[in-house]
Amino acid sequence: MKLKPNERIDDLHINGYKIIQNTEGFCFGMDAVLLSGFAKVKEDETHLDLGTGTGIIPILLEAKGMGKSYMGLEIQETFVDMANRSVVMNKIDDKVTIIHGDIKEADKLLPLSSFNVITTNPPYMDSGKGLVNPESMKAIARHEILCTLEDVIKSASRLVTVSGRFYMIHRPHRLIDIIELLRRYNMEPKRLRMVHSYIHKDATMVLIEAVRNGKPMIKVESPLIIYKAINEYTDEIKQIYGKI
Amino acid sequence: MKLKPNERIDDLHINGYKIIQNTEGFCFGMDAVLLSGFAKVKEDETHLDLGTGTGIIPILLEAKGMGKSYMGLEIQETFVDMANRSVVMNKIDDKVTIIHGDIKEADKLLPLSSFNVITTNPPYMDSGKGLVNPESMKAIARHEILCTLEDVIKSASRLVTVSGRFYMIHRPHRLIDIIELLRRYNMEPKRLRMVHSYIHKDATMVLIEAVRNGKPMIKVESPLIIYKAINEYTDEIKQIYGKI
Repeated sequence: MKLKPNERIDDLHINGYKIIQNTEGFCFGMDAVLLSGFAKVKEDETHLDLGTGTGIIPILLEAKGMGKSYMGLEIQETFVDMANRSVVMNKIDDKVTIIHGDIKEADKLLPLSSFNVITTNPPYMDSGKGLVNPESMKAIARHEILCTLEDVIKSASRLVTVSGRFYMIHRPHRLIDIIELLRRYNMEPKRLRMVHSYIHKDATMVLIEAVRNGKPMIKVESPLIIYKAINEYTDEIKQIYGKI
Repeated sequence: MKLKPNERIDDLHINGYKIIQNTEGFCFGMDAVLLSGFAKVKEDETHLDLGTGTGIIPILLEAKGMGKSYMGLEIQETFVDMANRSVVMNKIDDKVTIIHGDIKEADKLLPLSSFNVITTNPPYMDSGKGLVNPESMKAIARHEILCTLEDVIKSASRLVTVSGRFYMIHRPHRLIDIIELLRRYNMEPKRLRMVHSYIHKDATMVLIEAVRNGKPMIKVESPLIIYKAINEYTDEIKQIYGKI
């Protein structure tokens, strides 16, 4: 496998899969791993990841699931190219497809109401006003420059099947906006899990599952705690990372 | 202090305060204690508790706070009478007032936009269709028979000052409805805390603070865990109960 400048290959600790990342670009973080641990793709279901970056989420979900197909949509061509090479390297190109496109236009690129499961780990930060370089790969992946939270939820609501599931990881401070937007687009929140670095700390991330046209009734799951001591992951985190 | 049939006096483990409860009626539970631990009444602030029952919340908040005044509104006269006697017994009738009235009519009984802090531990269960005795004290305190979640939030939004704070404890499965209703009545959720019996269990209660006309931005606090082992409270719960 030939790499381009600044690229490296990282081991995913599952099925022997690896992923290509660009050390100058944007490397996947714990949020992607947690989302792939929270989302479920059942047998014969179809999956789509909105804003897939390196393709980490479809690759991890394919490793763990029994789905029929996995797809990643990504606006930045450099990422599309890297993700495609990772898919080929892992020999899962019969199941996983990476396509180039804009989340805001996704309902024109892809068939409506056609994916059983949609995931997203969208840009968290505000529109990035004042950013030194708002065109950088990192900035676009992290900031709401090319799409807003509403764009992502709206696209998901149009592409997911009726009763299909939408999984997102985001920052807790946006939770109220997330919930309001999900209901506005008929995606009923059904499962919520807060992520805390330590048990006595405020949440740093939130995992949410919504069901298109679902009935109101949410389950708040046990908190997901990352560290049990400094530099020591909890058993659950080790398990999610496949290191236990 | 003379008691009526089936009444008993319980120690509140704070300031030497006690409370009268009716063993055939409805005794306060951990939810009231947790709410009074989560809510804050600052110096010179005025407080109102909607659906106060035995008066447990104003009495506990008065014990801990520096507020100017505390008030409990209650629709069931038997509770109003009991709560009033508890207030007199604790010699706090200069600060705490219990009044008789319906939450749905509270905006006619009390001055609008006048309380800095409003608390409520409302009936959790659905309207109680099929209940053996929907007129019982217990049923009215626990079920949405005489008021709905929306009635409570609407009244609170009319009585709290601009920038005033509203604190509620409720069941997690209603969280999405709670959030939607709070926003509908311009009460922005600002703090959220999940309560779990054990760290590895789903949440059983949720504590929420909203601010009238507040800016969108919520903090999700550390999970509140009740037991560290069977029949053994965590240190935080012991502290809230004043037993540490």
